[in-house]
Amino acid sequence: MLFPDENRQSGYITVGYRGTFAFGRDGMSDVKFRKLARIIVCGRVALCREVFGENLNESRDPDRGPMDRYTGRFFLKHLFLEQAFDNLQEAGFKCVASCGSGTSGGSAELKPGMDPEESRWNHYNEFVFVRD
Amino acid sequence: MLFPDENRQSGYITVGYRGTFAFGRDGMSDVKFRKLARIIVCGRVALCREVFGENLNESRDPDRGPMDRYTGRFFLKHLFLEQAFDNLQEAGFKCVASCGSGTSGGSAELKPGMDPEESRWNHYNEFVFVRD
Amino acid sequence: MLFPDENRQSGYITVGYRGTFAFGRDGMSDVKFRKLARIIVCGRVALCREVFGENLNESRDPDRGPMDRYTGRFFLKHLFLEQAFDNLQEAGFKCVASCGSGTSGGSAELKPGMDPEESRWNHYNEFVFVRD
Amino acid sequence: MLFPDENRQSGYITVGYRGTFAFGRDGMSDVKFRKLARIIVCGRVALCREVFGENLNESRDPDRGPMDRYTGRFFLKHLFLEQAFDNLQEAGFKCVASCGSGTSGGSAELKPGMDPEESRWNHYNEFVFVRD
Amino acid sequence: MLFPDENRQSGYITVGYRGTFAFGRDGMSDVKFRKLARIIVCGRVALCREVFGENLNESRDPDRGPMDRYTGRFFLKHLFLEQAFDNLQEAGFKCVASCGSGTSGGSAELKPGMDPEESRWNHYNEFVFVRD
Repeated sequence: MLFPDENRQSGYITVGYRGTFAFGRDGMSDVKFRKLARIIVCGRVALCREVFGENLNESRDPDRGPMDRYTGRFFLKHLFLEQAFDNLQEAGFKCVASCGSGTSGGSAELKPGMDPEESRWNHYNEFVFVRD
Repeated sequence: MLFPDENRQSGYITVGYRGTFAFGRDGMSDVKFRKLARIIVCGRVALCREVFGENLNESRDPDRGPMDRYTGRFFLKHLFLEQAFDNLQEAGFKCVASCGSGTSGGSAELKPGMDPEESRWNHYNEFVFVRD
Repeated sequence: MLFPDENRQSGYITVGYRGTFAFGRDGMSDVKFRKLARIIVCGRVALCREVFGENLNESRDPDRGPMDRYTGRFFLKHLFLEQAFDNLQEAGFKCVASCGSGTSGGSAELKPGMDPEESRWNHYNEFVFVRD
Repeated sequence: MLFPDENRQSGYITVGYRGTFAFGRDGMSDVKFRKLARIIVCGRVALCREVFGENLNESRDPDRGPMDRYTGRFFLKHLFLEQAFDNLQEAGFKCVASCGSGTSGGSAELKPGMDPEESRWNHYNEFVFVRD
Repeated sequence: MLFPDENRQSGYITVGYRGTFAFGRDGMSDVKFRKLARIIVCGRVALCREVFGENLNESRDPDRGPMDRYTGRFFLKHLFLEQAFDNLQEAGFKCVASCGSGTSGGSAELKPGMDPEESRWNHYNEFVFVRD
């Protein structure tokens, strides 16, 4: 593509992840990794496809079809947040803002197999990218 | 409009959404979408109307009338956050900041039909846009 | 004022608000507005007065007097956040950052007349403005 | 100093505060001020001293001595956040990001003399400043 | 290196920390320091190594080997957040966004030796750096 800037379109893409930390129960409790459950991609379909290509999982998006629409149901096939950031940078997007929130502890019932410490650190962080 | 920049006015518009994630109960618990309940638009009435036009729901704004006032009661007819962002970009606004918060778990009484996991992930994210 | 930039001083002003959402109990539960309780203005007294003028409530600031001091006790007479932002923009300030937080659910005792859903969504958002 | 830019060093300084709001119990419950408990300053010792000078409380920093090290134990002698911001601006720093978080309500035991409403609104906000 | 800009690669690195405050039990309860448990570094392996060098702990990263991959399992050997920031600045990165979240109070069971006040102030702050 000789003139990539000619055809490219401006717009916003939002990337978010739900995550927590992996707490070891085997005496390695001081080693806690970032543990992402899902990286979500939201925005105009055409832009998302251009940026993430094969890494985009569209299986849960009910409205397959036209490019000129918006979706909040794409997610990535991998769990590397910074790879998503780098893909956005390569496509000419830049990060301009981000925001985060934790969860409330309203549900006393903890699901089987879920570590209570992991549950407490659950959070959702959202990153706003834009291309001029 | 030949000279769009001539008449346009500077100012701030804040876009916020209350949202959570859709958690499947049918064995698809690993598939969790962003689930927005409402996109709120706040700012000077004239600016909000210029940017969002027909997508703006003004039905809950008690003070119909003059353009030269502020409102915190507009919301969008759709639930695509990035479409709102793109509309702002097309009108010359840029995102400069954002902030988020979750909810507290003070109310043990969960409303009928509400999933406790969805309730725990409730959050409000707010995005600040400005036009120079 | 012919040379407004000559005498103006650089500095930071922080604007914050405590707020939640208004939840209807009359079958309109899907209509939830942003509901601000108070907009707080913090910074050097001279700057705050220059920007907000008559909209500034100084009645709770114990140290009336010199301009060359800082206060965290000013608040606005109105509840339109974006009007405050626009006033800051008109005075040459720009928003560079913002952060938010919710509340914890430690107090089981809910005050009379307070809606539990409103209480859960309480948050404090803070916006940092600077003039070079 | 004739050429201040010549000798000045680049770097990051982080300013954070733990705070809440003062809630009146004397019928003035609608008047709630920002109430800071402590302003923390973190970064390279030499930079922190250059910016905050006499306003810096170093008494809790165990490693008095060399300038070429980092500390997370400085705090300010005053409680005016914007004064700290202005000091940073005067020294050539600019705010580039901020983030905040509340507290969890895990501890039912409220310390004597602490207002439960104040406790609920506790938060920690952190501001990132950089000098190029 | 004569032409450092020639070979350097663009990309994002995310730095985050889990932390709280140290609350004294010896009558010094008013002196509360920032207390970091771990500084996490995420991004492309080659970039992380270039920036942090010997300060990088890679012992928990299962996939030793190629540089051209991403990791979320690096952390720093020290606990000085601003030193990490300065290292990023020296390598040509700049901070563009940050977000934070607290923890939920769902687990009533407090681990032995953990101060309840420290537990309540637990938070995770994340900082986004980019190099063009």
